[in-house]
Amino acid sequence: MRINADEDLHPRYPRYPRLKAPVTSFSFELLKTSGGARRGRMQTAHGTVETPIFMPVGTQGSVKTVAPWELRELGAQIILGNTYHLFVRPGMEVIKHFEGLHNFASWDGPILTDSGGFQVFSLAKLRKITEEGVRFQNHLDGAPCFLSPEVVMEIQQTLGSDIAMAFDECPPWPCDREYSANSLERTLRWAQRCRDWAVQQDEAGARRPAIFGIVQGSVFADQRRDSAERLAAMHFEGLAIGGVSVGEPETEMMRAVENSEPWLPTDKPRYTMGLGTPPQMVEMIARGVDMFDCVLPTRIARNGTAFTARGTLNLKNAPFAKDKGPIEEGCTCPACRNFARGYLRHLIKSEEILGLRLVSLHNLHFYLNLMRQTREAIEEDRFDSFRRMVVENYVSR
Amino acid sequence: MRINADEDLHPRYPRYPRLKAPVTSFSFELLKTSGGARRGRMQTAHGTVETPIFMPVGTQGSVKTVAPWELRELGAQIILGNTYHLFVRPGMEVIKHFEGLHNFASWDGPILTDSGGFQVFSLAKLRKITEEGVRFQNHLDGAPCFLSPEVVMEIQQTLGSDIAMAFDECPPWPCDREYSANSLERTLRWAQRCRDWAVQQDEAGARRPAIFGIVQGSVFADQRRDSAERLAAMHFEGLAIGGVSVGEPETEMMRAVENSEPWLPTDKPRYTMGLGTPPQMVEMIARGVDMFDCVLPTRIARNGTAFTARGTLNLKNAPFAKDKGPIEEGCTCPACRNFARGYLRHLIKSEEILGLRLVSLHNLHFYLNLMRQTREAIEEDRFDSFRRMVVENYVSR
Repeated sequence: MRINADEDLHPRYPRYPRLKAPVTSFSFELLKTSGGARRGRMQTAHGTVETPIFMPVGTQGSVKTVAPWELRELGAQIILGNTYHLFVRPGMEVIKHFEGLHNFASWDGPILTDSGGFQVFSLAKLRKITEEGVRFQNHLDGAPCFLSPEVVMEIQQTLGSDIAMAFDECPPWPCDREYSANSLERTLRWAQRCRDWAVQQDEAGARRPAIFGIVQGSVFADQRRDSAERLAAMHFEGLAIGGVSVGEPETEMMRAVENSEPWLPTDKPRYTMGLGTPPQMVEMIARGVDMFDCVLPTRIARNGTAFTARGTLNLKNAPFAKDKGPIEEGCTCPACRNFARGYLRHLIKSEEILGLRLVSLHNLHFYLNLMRQTREAIEEDRFDSFRRMVVENYVSR
Repeated sequence: MRINADEDLHPRYPRYPRLKAPVTSFSFELLKTSGGARRGRMQTAHGTVETPIFMPVGTQGSVKTVAPWELRELGAQIILGNTYHLFVRPGMEVIKHFEGLHNFASWDGPILTDSGGFQVFSLAKLRKITEEGVRFQNHLDGAPCFLSPEVVMEIQQTLGSDIAMAFDECPPWPCDREYSANSLERTLRWAQRCRDWAVQQDEAGARRPAIFGIVQGSVFADQRRDSAERLAAMHFEGLAIGGVSVGEPETEMMRAVENSEPWLPTDKPRYTMGLGTPPQMVEMIARGVDMFDCVLPTRIARNGTAFTARGTLNLKNAPFAKDKGPIEEGCTCPACRNFARGYLRHLIKSEEILGLRLVSLHNLHFYLNLMRQTREAIEEDRFDSFRRMVVENYVSR
């Protein structure tokens, strides 16, 4: 088991002093490896997270269609909230009044929030990037807004996040070498400002989230390495690999991870943002990734599509009309324990919300259960055969 | 306590022989009265129903947004399914394959189905009424369909209903004396055919639902009486008062009940279809009604409106944004136990399905709890003061 503390790496870059532990007390322990796959444990102020882990996405402070007690029953350990969406609505005044997102949404487990960067670039209108930050009009009412590294850190502090993401620019795919290099430099300067903000909080003894830096560099191996090494030297509590799942081919997605991972400290959690399919996640885990988030399970559920070990099923298809079996034989989710495919098809065809709910529960269960099985496979040092089984069984449709 | 078995009433009309008990074994017992209000108990093949009772509406085989286990937790004793909707989709072939609606929808409690008459007249296109039945094109794909008293009885038998409604025409409001009289006569002939069907089933020893006849007669007291007496003489297992809540003023609605009720047997359950607000239900109970169904609790929930003892609240209103209180103080529903008005408002403004779910749960809880309180008030013979309290507290908004 390779364990390199981030002190031991990256002699090419200036050493930053270590960050104090955030007042919310975050830690990560690497428990075991199996091939490249890692079995770890994160401690947060709101509880323990066993990795590898999938984080259900609660964009607007609600994992779509699902109640917090259902998330608990499904075994969700940590959920994600979107800074941009919550900043725009209900807004920070309301969140502050409710003393954070945990109280507001009645979720007492850990919360990770993204930095809002990705959403500003994909949703907002008339955005203007400067060195200081990004001015834009929000997508709801066009009101002028401004996000900068410091503002984004404060928002995430107000949200009461357990894990906050540094403010970054996620370049589009494809993008040329020069654009990527310039964007990356700015993202690194912004990361530095997030770090400075953390140092201030720590010096003031203020409660702050753990902060993850975000590796960029598009498809350029040298930029990925540069980004990973320089972020590692900043001693964030974890590192994310960003700029993936933005339309690039799957080989490029894997290469982005392969080009970043060797330069990341092994004693910090690693997170690839916004993906993926079950085989993609397992392949990422084989490459040393610990954390995932993705809207797929709840998004495709709303279209009547369910995940199974053999690929996705579109429950709208006519042959399911008289199917008395569950979505997946042996599945222990509330949908499979109680309902036949034929009934679920009827609900979805009839646009009944219960149908979306049940398929969402199934899909989230599938993702969370895949991670449970992955953790077991690593613990029992049989991850590689598990990975092959998952990938071979799964047929993309 | 006035108890008239239907034998003792209506000397003006020919006596029909009594119906055998349906093979699904249905019975009703009147336990106690308090003023005009009645405390009763129905036994069905799928369990006991304590009356007065509100029945959540599962139009398409699902009470909108709510899972069966949630209905149980809310204390729902019986739910309603819509014959017309289920006949059109998923269709009887699918329902037959699943051996009825209970299996199909995983609801093991009693189910009442309407006759489809009301929906044919309100939803279908190009309908043509003849003595035989109604030809129409369904609202989904325009396919030609035909419903008659016998077809509707068979559909409800296939659905496995515990309580089936006779096929009737629900005349519009306003409607003239002659239209109403003609429609009523046809409805009575159709009721007779439903009765004939029941006799055949009983003679064959076939399992059939209990059947409720439906009193019509619009706003005309003599027609209401005529309808009630002639249906009572047919010995259905229960009687409904139809043609209410079709746009008429509330005074006319109450008068329709007052003009029907004295001619109904006291040893059979009475049901007013498709209503109403909390004060309307309590006023109907004061007039001897036992059963209600209404889409209001789930329909207005989807618009962000919640029931409380002091009237409805529109949770979208701005003052709720920072409101940390529950929808209703002291309410024990899952929404009020876990979430603040401010969060619910955010969910509804953000069009999050969880918001619709939580307000639907609250509103169903409110209706079911109102019936629980009503039953207690009758048991303790203080119904009239309870009724006055409910009506005076409730402010229509």
